[in-house]
Amino acid sequence: MLNGMNPVDIAARSDLINEHWSPKIVAELNGQQVKLAKLKGEFVWHSHDVDELFFVLEGEFEMHLRGSVLPLKKGEMVVVPAGVEHKPVAHEEATVMLIEPVGVVNTGETGGDLTHEAEWI
Amino acid sequence: MLNGMNPVDIAARSDLINEHWSPKIVAELNGQQVKLAKLKGEFVWHSHDVDELFFVLEGEFEMHLRGSVLPLKKGEMVVVPAGVEHKPVAHEEATVMLIEPVGVVNTGETGGDLTHEAEWI
Repeated sequence: MLNGMNPVDIAARSDLINEHWSPKIVAELNGQQVKLAKLKGEFVWHSHDVDELFFVLEGEFEMHLRGSVLPLKKGEMVVVPAGVEHKPVAHEEATVMLIEPVGVVNTGETGGDLTHEAEWI
Repeated sequence: MLNGMNPVDIAARSDLINEHWSPKIVAELNGQQVKLAKLKGEFVWHSHDVDELFFVLEGEFEMHLRGSVLPLKKGEMVVVPAGVEHKPVAHEEATVMLIEPVGVVNTGETGGDLTHEAEWI
């Protein structure tokens, strides 16, 4: 675990990630964690009981919402409020930064095969 | 105020900032705010009673700590823990993303002429 006053090189940490849909923790502050994840393909519909921020670092993806699709490209961020069902879809690989409280599980209330407990990298 | 499910183009928002050391809010989640700030020159020594994250979007700067200097370049982030005195110094203009709880004032306990209440852009 490298945190605290050690600078975190985001691109270098992203290079360590070799699986999709498995967020890795790179920083923690005030009960929130900053995670990096690589997305490719279609995730599952799910929601959380907390807000979740997505910031696109590389590539682009679509945030599917019930009734609409929000396209997000490199350099854009969005907050998915607590309780809002969402499903990320990435036609090509994308790298995103997530910010959410400690302990949030990627598949939220839905669970299933894509569930990964976040670990530090 | 543009937040919620509206994508925030970080570079476009940064372009709206025309003063130094005056963080602007671009997103909010779980009691934390994401802010953008342009730095140039030397800030004041200060601390906060909460953790504060700095992520360098453009350029580079130095985080001065009591007894050491932490150089931070584009793509790097660091968390300054609550209570740790720090002073950002940017020899050339740098753009940073900050994450900290709602209500944090840029100069912390120190105050002075560089104090700015954060507003949404």
